[in-house]
Amino acid sequence: MGSRNQIVVIGGVAAGMKTASRIMRLNPFAKVIVLEKTKDVSYGACSLPYYIEGHFDDLEEVRRTPVGVLRDEKFFANCKGVEVRTLTEALEIDSKQKKVKVRNLENDQESEIPYDKLVLATGNHPILPPIPGMELPGVYPLKTMADAENILSRSKNCKKAVIIGGGLIGLEVAEALVHNGLQVSLIEMKNQVLNNALDFGMASLVHRELKKNGVNLCLSQPLERIEARNGKVCAVKTPEGVVDAEMVVVAIGVKPVVALAQKAGLKLGETGAIAVDDHLCTSDPDIYAAGDCVESQHLLSKEKLYVPLGSTANKHGRVVANNICGRAEKFPGILSTLVVKVFNQNGARTGLLPEQAQAAGFDPVSVLIASPDKVHNYPDCKPIDIKLVADKKSRKVIGAQIVGPGDVSKRIDTVVAGISMGITVDQMAQLDLAYAPPFSAAMDPLHIAANALRNKLDGIMESLDPQELRVKQLNGDDFVFLDVRSPKEYEEVRIPGATLIPLGVLRSRVNELPKDKEIIPFCKLSLRGYEAALILKGAGFENVRYMEGGVLGWPYELETS
Amino acid sequence: MGSRNQIVVIGGVAAGMKTASRIMRLNPFAKVIVLEKTKDVSYGACSLPYYIEGHFDDLEEVRRTPVGVLRDEKFFANCKGVEVRTLTEALEIDSKQKKVKVRNLENDQESEIPYDKLVLATGNHPILPPIPGMELPGVYPLKTMADAENILSRSKNCKKAVIIGGGLIGLEVAEALVHNGLQVSLIEMKNQVLNNALDFGMASLVHRELKKNGVNLCLSQPLERIEARNGKVCAVKTPEGVVDAEMVVVAIGVKPVVALAQKAGLKLGETGAIAVDDHLCTSDPDIYAAGDCVESQHLLSKEKLYVPLGSTANKHGRVVANNICGRAEKFPGILSTLVVKVFNQNGARTGLLPEQAQAAGFDPVSVLIASPDKVHNYPDCKPIDIKLVADKKSRKVIGAQIVGPGDVSKRIDTVVAGISMGITVDQMAQLDLAYAPPFSAAMDPLHIAANALRNKLDGIMESLDPQELRVKQLNGDDFVFLDVRSPKEYEEVRIPGATLIPLGVLRSRVNELPKDKEIIPFCKLSLRGYEAALILKGAGFENVRYMEGGVLGWPYELETS
Repeated sequence: MGSRNQIVVIGGVAAGMKTASRIMRLNPFAKVIVLEKTKDVSYGACSLPYYIEGHFDDLEEVRRTPVGVLRDEKFFANCKGVEVRTLTEALEIDSKQKKVKVRNLENDQESEIPYDKLVLATGNHPILPPIPGMELPGVYPLKTMADAENILSRSKNCKKAVIIGGGLIGLEVAEALVHNGLQVSLIEMKNQVLNNALDFGMASLVHRELKKNGVNLCLSQPLERIEARNGKVCAVKTPEGVVDAEMVVVAIGVKPVVALAQKAGLKLGETGAIAVDDHLCTSDPDIYAAGDCVESQHLLSKEKLYVPLGSTANKHGRVVANNICGRAEKFPGILSTLVVKVFNQNGARTGLLPEQAQAAGFDPVSVLIASPDKVHNYPDCKPIDIKLVADKKSRKVIGAQIVGPGDVSKRIDTVVAGISMGITVDQMAQLDLAYAPPFSAAMDPLHIAANALRNKLDGIMESLDPQELRVKQLNGDDFVFLDVRSPKEYEEVRIPGATLIPLGVLRSRVNELPKDKEIIPFCKLSLRGYEAALILKGAGFENVRYMEGGVLGWPYELETS
Repeated sequence: MGSRNQIVVIGGVAAGMKTASRIMRLNPFAKVIVLEKTKDVSYGACSLPYYIEGHFDDLEEVRRTPVGVLRDEKFFANCKGVEVRTLTEALEIDSKQKKVKVRNLENDQESEIPYDKLVLATGNHPILPPIPGMELPGVYPLKTMADAENILSRSKNCKKAVIIGGGLIGLEVAEALVHNGLQVSLIEMKNQVLNNALDFGMASLVHRELKKNGVNLCLSQPLERIEARNGKVCAVKTPEGVVDAEMVVVAIGVKPVVALAQKAGLKLGETGAIAVDDHLCTSDPDIYAAGDCVESQHLLSKEKLYVPLGSTANKHGRVVANNICGRAEKFPGILSTLVVKVFNQNGARTGLLPEQAQAAGFDPVSVLIASPDKVHNYPDCKPIDIKLVADKKSRKVIGAQIVGPGDVSKRIDTVVAGISMGITVDQMAQLDLAYAPPFSAAMDPLHIAANALRNKLDGIMESLDPQELRVKQLNGDDFVFLDVRSPKEYEEVRIPGATLIPLGVLRSRVNELPKDKEIIPFCKLSLRGYEAALILKGAGFENVRYMEGGVLGWPYELETS
């Protein structure tokens, strides 16, 4: 890039502003113009649910730097040397003449801006399904600062809200509105929240948490229409009935904004987002694309995906700037990593679910373990469930799901680093992770998961997860479902259909069990269940598998006294 | 291993019990005997400081499983099929006849136990330096449950405690005793706590926290003697004076227990711990060693180290058991990973310090950054400082130190996974880490650190850390130390000797600065300092480096209003 080349960036949120700032850092003599249709640049959309929840009072906080400086046009001009034109809409790209036609939305004047390199950071827009009632006042998406303000102010004047969609935003807004005192229903078309991100079993732990916090969870219910009374939203209709609603937040997903790109003849990918090469260059060598308008590739499956995220947008911005400034850099791809807080449960995932792995040609083997997140006698120790997936042949870790009230985000990031570098379960089991009672146990939950999976891969121990067990129950299979916890634990809470023989007396009472039936022991977590399986095998029982995850990992109904 | 082979394990804490249990899991028909000199097996020594601090009331908790089952002899017999003989001292190993001579400490009877394979898990003992007064009542090590009980009960009857040694245990006990209302002095021979684990600059952040919490921190002071009045401890004497003490906790380190091994002619390593091969086999092919009595090897430097830790002990136990049971497995080595909570600061490290890297033949380049641990407007967001070290040629990450009130343990574990797999700074910058406001920022602190280090490696930006800056100050170098924060921030707290020009007006006031002197801008974290350096370079200043870490990373004195 010549020092006075002009770079035009369309879109001034995460990817656009990052690209612009990085270009100026690499080349203080460059000329960078950012075009933003709205009046707000560089806002942190991910924080909007937390604004609604009341975690901070000044909405402008989502536009501030960590030290409180407002990231407005002036800031970018003075501190970064970037020219930002807000309320300026890019109308058309003339890729032959290398110029962008723009309209100033304040005075409606049109003009043309020439570019040497162009960056598309046009972002996403919320999907609003074409059903009756979507246009009603009181029906909101959540994308902009204005949306957040509208949702918050409406929520102060009503009691019943319906959220459509059990993805990240739907879950976060559900929590926010419950926190603000509303009765909240969450309607999801699929039979689980976080579809494609978590297994049904892991998602069920989230379902339990939603219900525990009073959310009326309506699964497997497609939205039919939003109903009004006197011009105001009053209910949401699904095939199963009507749910009262004074306000509706539609969070069924987002689409990439690609109209400009399409009009300019740029290639779109199979997901509908802008197709880019490894360097984030579009089909036009002078046009790059970054952030939520771009199609991603999965690091493991090589599948094309559309996963808009602020973290990816920031990485994209840096890569695009580097490439424009002559420092060739590739964006390696994503692992579809995700983390979410849902009331007192945290959920996270990375890599591939077992079915996704299968579809991508892997031979997945998975294990579910439950473990305390730190030394159990340290205050605030909480359990987490980990479902770890490896490829049978290579023994490489290819996916993880972690759900629980404990520290899931640490473990998922550790797995992300491992998977990105091709770690095997054997290597994961030996990681010299940081140990002290306030932070972890001597065997970190990741070690326990890796070792459990090694045992399974090596044929040392057979096991099945609660979903597989549930199928056996529903099929009416004849087996002994053996609870080996203490009588006191059994008294408190139990899985229907289980027989109690505490582990401590199992050796002496082993004759009570039939040798011709499958025996499936379990406990609270899964350690004693595993020990019980060993004792039974030692006693000559051949048909024994323990149930992974234990009572804590059981996502279905429990009996209590 | 034949199914009825007899395995004898000497030592029944972490490594010993893990070995025994895993052997029984792999071979339910094996015969495993554990010999333990004391009456307690399988206790979690790392929790003892937290018992003293009052985080749990029942000391037996350190011997319980996460679900509350006491791990005593009966538990191991009934649940694991392991025979544990407590109060049984191993006196001698006859490696030719393959038997161990033991003494029953209850009836003083001696006997011999034959073995097919022997496992030494003899652990460590605290170093008590041979100085006057070590034998006084009121002077304690902290290794056993009894020690913890003694320290706690003594602390209830006195007001002034001295801790000798600024390592993990010293720091944890200092916090515990301050929490219990005592006036605590910490005496450390070196000029910093956590010597060899943290740089002086990073350790200084811990020093500040200790002082802030009222700990009388006495650095660079070797212990001369412990003084008594009327047979009771009354003071600790160092070359610099006398520190009052009604009780003294000696935590200067531990040594491996190797007497038995030595007597049996087993090879010791250069650190004095038992030398083992990759399979944790000693110089006798029928004798393995595991846990705190064993010498480790550093994964990166290949240096031999003695780093006793419960986490390593557990991994060792599994590896030894696997090898004994015919499942060959290597223990790969350690990264000297460490994490510690010191009041409201957390400190962690892994890999090599720059000096250690240099000594091991690397060409280390490091960077210090300060960053919020999550989105800054999310409640409970706290800063962390990361010092990341890479090798210049390979660009591989070879070390990290992380200190701050925020979530350091997540980042250190992520780095551990990365370093173990040979990650480069470039790969680290692209990790698809989990992002949501309650857990991290769109650019995780690790991304920021990796990118800052890439800039440095690529010559895009020059910088120096506070320690290097301090040397310049002390040398009387002539340079402009430029604070680019806001006037309000400057008013609150500032680094002595700095000049204020806020970033937002720097472009317009750039003529106030001399072009013939080095200019070193900084801010609160380091982002604006970095931007300022770019602006200055853009304005034709050639001799510019920013100071890493900013005010938050400055470990020396600060001025406040």
